Amino acid sequence: MESEKKLSDEQALIVRTVRKLLAKYDSRYWRKLDRDSGYPSELFKQIQSLGLASIPITNEYGGPGLGAREASLVLEEINASGGNAQHFHGQYYLLFLISKCASQELKEKYLPAIAKGSLSLQSLGLTEPEAGSESTKIKTFARKDGGNYIISGHKIFISRVLQSDLMLLVTRTTPYDKVEKKTEGLTLFLVDLKQAAGSIEVQNIRTAINSQTFELFINDLKVPASNVIGEVGSGFKYLLNVLNPERILIAAECIGDARWFIERSISYAKKRVVFNRPIGSNQGIQFPIASVYSKLLAAEGVTWRAATMYDESSQLEVQEKTEEQSSAKQIGKYANIAKYLASECSTEAGSVAMDVHGGYGMSEEMDIERKFMENRLYRVAPVSQNLVLSYIAHSVLDLPRSY
Amino acid sequence: MESEKKLSDEQALIVRTVRKLLAKYDSRYWRKLDRDSGYPSELFKQIQSLGLASIPITNEYGGPGLGAREASLVLEEINASGGNAQHFHGQYYLLFLISKCASQELKEKYLPAIAKGSLSLQSLGLTEPEAGSESTKIKTFARKDGGNYIISGHKIFISRVLQSDLMLLVTRTTPYDKVEKKTEGLTLFLVDLKQAAGSIEVQNIRTAINSQTFELFINDLKVPASNVIGEVGSGFKYLLNVLNPERILIAAECIGDARWFIERSISYAKKRVVFNRPIGSNQGIQFPIASVYSKLLAAEGVTWRAATMYDESSQLEVQEKTEEQSSAKQIGKYANIAKYLASECSTEAGSVAMDVHGGYGMSEEMDIERKFMENRLYRVAPVSQNLVLSYIAHSVLDLPRSY
Amino acid sequence: MESEKKLSDEQALIVRTVRKLLAKYDSRYWRKLDRDSGYPSELFKQIQSLGLASIPITNEYGGPGLGAREASLVLEEINASGGNAQHFHGQYYLLFLISKCASQELKEKYLPAIAKGSLSLQSLGLTEPEAGSESTKIKTFARKDGGNYIISGHKIFISRVLQSDLMLLVTRTTPYDKVEKKTEGLTLFLVDLKQAAGSIEVQNIRTAINSQTFELFINDLKVPASNVIGEVGSGFKYLLNVLNPERILIAAECIGDARWFIERSISYAKKRVVFNRPIGSNQGIQFPIASVYSKLLAAEGVTWRAATMYDESSQLEVQEKTEEQSSAKQIGKYANIAKYLASECSTEAGSVAMDVHGGYGMSEEMDIERKFMENRLYRVAPVSQNLVLSYIAHSVLDLPRSY
Amino acid sequence: MESEKKLSDEQALIVRTVRKLLAKYDSRYWRKLDRDSGYPSELFKQIQSLGLASIPITNEYGGPGLGAREASLVLEEINASGGNAQHFHGQYYLLFLISKCASQELKEKYLPAIAKGSLSLQSLGLTEPEAGSESTKIKTFARKDGGNYIISGHKIFISRVLQSDLMLLVTRTTPYDKVEKKTEGLTLFLVDLKQAAGSIEVQNIRTAINSQTFELFINDLKVPASNVIGEVGSGFKYLLNVLNPERILIAAECIGDARWFIERSISYAKKRVVFNRPIGSNQGIQFPIASVYSKLLAAEGVTWRAATMYDESSQLEVQEKTEEQSSAKQIGKYANIAKYLASECSTEAGSVAMDVHGGYGMSEEMDIERKFMENRLYRVAPVSQNLVLSYIAHSVLDLPRSY
Repeated sequence: MESEKKLSDEQALIVRTVRKLLAKYDSRYWRKLDRDSGYPSELFKQIQSLGLASIPITNEYGGPGLGAREASLVLEEINASGGNAQHFHGQYYLLFLISKCASQELKEKYLPAIAKGSLSLQSLGLTEPEAGSESTKIKTFARKDGGNYIISGHKIFISRVLQSDLMLLVTRTTPYDKVEKKTEGLTLFLVDLKQAAGSIEVQNIRTAINSQTFELFINDLKVPASNVIGEVGSGFKYLLNVLNPERILIAAECIGDARWFIERSISYAKKRVVFNRPIGSNQGIQFPIASVYSKLLAAEGVTWRAATMYDESSQLEVQEKTEEQSSAKQIGKYANIAKYLASECSTEAGSVAMDVHGGYGMSEEMDIERKFMENRLYRVAPVSQNLVLSYIAHSVLDLPRSY
Repeated sequence: MESEKKLSDEQALIVRTVRKLLAKYDSRYWRKLDRDSGYPSELFKQIQSLGLASIPITNEYGGPGLGAREASLVLEEINASGGNAQHFHGQYYLLFLISKCASQELKEKYLPAIAKGSLSLQSLGLTEPEAGSESTKIKTFARKDGGNYIISGHKIFISRVLQSDLMLLVTRTTPYDKVEKKTEGLTLFLVDLKQAAGSIEVQNIRTAINSQTFELFINDLKVPASNVIGEVGSGFKYLLNVLNPERILIAAECIGDARWFIERSISYAKKRVVFNRPIGSNQGIQFPIASVYSKLLAAEGVTWRAATMYDESSQLEVQEKTEEQSSAKQIGKYANIAKYLASECSTEAGSVAMDVHGGYGMSEEMDIERKFMENRLYRVAPVSQNLVLSYIAHSVLDLPRSY
Repeated sequence: MESEKKLSDEQALIVRTVRKLLAKYDSRYWRKLDRDSGYPSELFKQIQSLGLASIPITNEYGGPGLGAREASLVLEEINASGGNAQHFHGQYYLLFLISKCASQELKEKYLPAIAKGSLSLQSLGLTEPEAGSESTKIKTFARKDGGNYIISGHKIFISRVLQSDLMLLVTRTTPYDKVEKKTEGLTLFLVDLKQAAGSIEVQNIRTAINSQTFELFINDLKVPASNVIGEVGSGFKYLLNVLNPERILIAAECIGDARWFIERSISYAKKRVVFNRPIGSNQGIQFPIASVYSKLLAAEGVTWRAATMYDESSQLEVQEKTEEQSSAKQIGKYANIAKYLASECSTEAGSVAMDVHGGYGMSEEMDIERKFMENRLYRVAPVSQNLVLSYIAHSVLDLPRSY
Repeated sequence: MESEKKLSDEQALIVRTVRKLLAKYDSRYWRKLDRDSGYPSELFKQIQSLGLASIPITNEYGGPGLGAREASLVLEEINASGGNAQHFHGQYYLLFLISKCASQELKEKYLPAIAKGSLSLQSLGLTEPEAGSESTKIKTFARKDGGNYIISGHKIFISRVLQSDLMLLVTRTTPYDKVEKKTEGLTLFLVDLKQAAGSIEVQNIRTAINSQTFELFINDLKVPASNVIGEVGSGFKYLLNVLNPERILIAAECIGDARWFIERSISYAKKRVVFNRPIGSNQGIQFPIASVYSKLLAAEGVTWRAATMYDESSQLEVQEKTEEQSSAKQIGKYANIAKYLASECSTEAGSVAMDVHGGYGMSEEMDIERKFMENRLYRVAPVSQNLVLSYIAHSVLDLPRSY
């Protein structure tokens, strides 16, 4: 299934490169990882060596300096080939954040190594048991101690902690009940996980999918003050910079999943014969496929437009405040709607694929059930469809808040 | 609700012009027409006088020589303002057909008058009681008689017969059971309805909406052979030229309807207070609006892309056969998917608007019920959603035929 | 389509009687009424003369003393035959209220005449512009004046005012801001509309359907204190007695509509031939019919169970308080769920019927569009699906209030 | 969540007994089984020892002689408690078949041991790679050899082969292309799996759920002719006797699942606090729960009615042919519709539960994802929703066949 997007030569090259690479890391690779609850380290090394893991890093730090569109293409193609791009997306959105908000010192310290592939930055330490969708409620606390911060707290559903060299850790430096605005008093740290090993107890969370997600008990973790990103106490503002690219990348992964589900459904519907004809000649089989394919086309267009907006806005060097705000608002609108539509579409496509494959859909060797559950996560993480609808209702359509 | 499309200056001017015009022909105008089962002749005269009724006519015949995008914008804005563009779309898609397929003689005879607004071409005489979705089954027959054809037959659901000067009439010149391929033997005539008056008995069909649709009993209607469009017997091929622009224009009308439904829903949800708060603060009200708005954004993108493809393909003067075929296939794909998505979206938006308005949705003065029913027609005409899904399954996704 | 319910002999007789009667008042009758915005007075007289308009009136007042099941059957059959039972349901639920809550004096004054068919009680004067779903917010005020009350106020969407002899009028006798509990201070009056004529200005509200609904401007209407129902100020409590039977009857009307939509769809799908086969052999046509038929079966079961519960509870002469409360809670649960399911099912069936009939669905002579819109009203009146879901969530499932 | 069904004392006792038993075999038990891909042998022994595994066996063979209602209650309660009743349902529907169709000799040979719990009959050997939904296409062949049959063939998706003592094996004794009617020439065998061990190669099929399903390569398996069920060549007719009870039991399992999903969703929605209030106070959370709960109530009613019909029909000793046929038709109708509705309802409830639980829904310790996938199987096995819709369309609604 070819892309409906108009790609530049460079983008088309990225797509071809990723496809060629994934021909070697096909379903058997992912199925084995799934059984062993393993991380695709080998594939990630290949992606790093092709320079595709550091897309957002600018030339001065040794990266290609590309944007959300190119990152989207990599992730979409991984999912469209039957893989699971969730293992890799963290580095992209964290790099967008670092590139925009970190000090030059911090960038010089880490970005070249990430660009070279000798360091990885896949983990975002944000969610806590009592602060899921409501990030300002986190309690993990960082207190100043000379040139360092001492951090303690409890995090849950933190991905790729054991598979990443670096983590972006979100803390409070002023408690929730001591700030005027609840969005104040949050501070972001870039944490070297090897150095932190003794101060973080990591517990694996068993999930329906091979998600490499963990519960962290952080106890007096010492992090140098120079590893603070941006200004102390302004972390929430920076964090907003991760939200839009993350939604756009997730949308791209959903597009990839939907393509895979639809391709597999078509292929199976054409060859599976029941009552002397391919099941694909039944409207009960083909109409749901045709309908969700139409939605895919539409969601893909919105997702690509969101990525394009994000990239174009990033390239604006000097602009008036109002233009920037208006641009940010448009990006937020498109990023959220892209996530909503792409996730709805891929959930539907996954359900269609399960239905089309009958009993075979439950068999591990068909990969349908694995992808079906991997894709299901996108409905609720990093943001639930309900919260996206609230955002659209309130921020885009100007309806009153519902909560 | 502003358009999400990137418009050229000329297109933006068309939008502003139509909006300004429609400010004078607002809901009261349409409500009155609806009660009287009247045709918006006065408004059509204004559209003609602004040169907007002859968009597809090229400069040499006195028209602006614009395309599906510009025609779409006019129709979308009419529906988005609370009007009913169904009264006007026929002239656009028929002019696309005439421009592409009619002889120079025929074009010289009629197009300048249409461009000037002294003639209208709003009626397509295709459907018959036994040949709805299956056009090749029509029985209306045209037999050669010297320099004329004598036509007899029975047509149903023929729109705007009494409101148009000209009709494109579809006939058989070879009976269904005498042709090898069922698509052969069809012939198109441009019929002057004033001259034809004595030979056509016109019966009004009462419908749920103010649709100006009729049943025709054609009895020995004489039409000069020079009024045949293209070659005798090849009508089906030409007719295909009407299908894609028609789907694209219908999609644009659905987009306009969806915008109107959503705007009205938002506006009402913000001001209607129940249990001490605007009903728009209920997720049960705002989530359906936010969801269908997301789909609108997506459907609008696909529709605009379809119109753009159609226009760009029309501008190709010389091209290789394969490129042309590939382009035609892409247009067919996008035109059908646009129609499917836009119609689904506007049906959903209409239903949301009915639900949001409660009992007031049934009141004539709110216009909701009128627009709700007007929009419902797009699900089944000019082509049903089921037939579109069949087309997508078979022609786009290469699944086996279901019938 | 035969009923799935197990009927007593008496109930079966009612069904046969109504069917026989309606064979004479078929679609042409309803279509004509619709065009003329007329009330089915002639049919109502027949229903009265058969003793079927006074089902809830007990023997001592000259009625048959039957229950919600029998009333449901009458209304269901009217809708299932292509008619519109909305014109008649008011008298049933108002009689349930009167029978339970009115003084013996009032019952003696009116019930025998209603049983004889010389008086009709079809109108409930409740809704106001600022008090739709939130009944306690009404402002129509009744002030004591000797042996009378003088009533003034503004009502909207009041049905059958010109087609009824009596109206149940809901007023405040203590203003909203003077009561401790907002449900206090409401008082119900039985109003003789002929006597009231000079004090009520009645304006017709034009709606999408032939609904006989009006806006009332009540100005110093004098009503004798003896026409108060139950205790002054306790009207809300009595009003609750109308809500459950009303929901049950509405559910029965939806069941009737769904049966009609499904029967018509099956019949048309079997005889309409396109591409050389009946369209009913397409899964795209037959699966939606089969699916909604399944839901009809389920909704019918719940509706009948709700009616049975209501009737059985009414027959409990002496019972413990807790048992009564528990019974009332169960009835509320089933009545609301029946309304929700039956309305969802009939909306879906209506939409399927529109889709199946293609362009013919819009034609007045097929009755589909008329029934489609008549049925649409049940989604929002007398209570919206959203409010029913709130009730189920809060009162049945013990979830926290959402407003 | 209490049952909405009116239970006899004996049925209520069964419910209480199963609930008490399952309190000891709670989520931890099932979670551990799931990780180890184990069979709940210990629980099954308990069920056997309580006499609940042999419900359909009549008193003369040592069973309780109960029906589909009682079997339904056991399975529903297992699923409603968080377990997976798929491990146990085979014995019920196979016992209904054996009781109705096997020779007295065969019944005497096996039923007492099954009633005692010393033998189990959990496995139905029907499906083949080229014969999924189309059972008559099976190729496994049994050829007569003296007093035995020699059987060879290839079966797939055969459940509980290693967990059952006996299997009902479906074979052809006349090849597909040698019979006049494709339903002829099928023969059923009761196979002792211990004796058969050397002739059947059993391969585990890895699936998304702990389903104990296998692929079988049968090679010259010798089975005594006395183990044929009913007449040779008439197997298809007997097999139909398994289909209706199977659908009814599956529907009951879906009802149990839906109850569990809804209970868990309510419980979580009440205690999970985000933005300072329980998420259950959001309409975006509570409306989907209330809606699917309504559908549960309806589906439960239809399922119970189907089971009651089946039981009552089984008790008819002597009846006229037409009455039997009419009864069989009604049972088929209700069994299929019950399966369709209950499966739709539980799929929706599962999806709601996943959405309500956010990221926690993916965590193994919540059991949501396990139950979600276990329940998903019911959409396609033992019969897909599409085939059920075809059945309803054709056999119930008299629409033309779609294939």
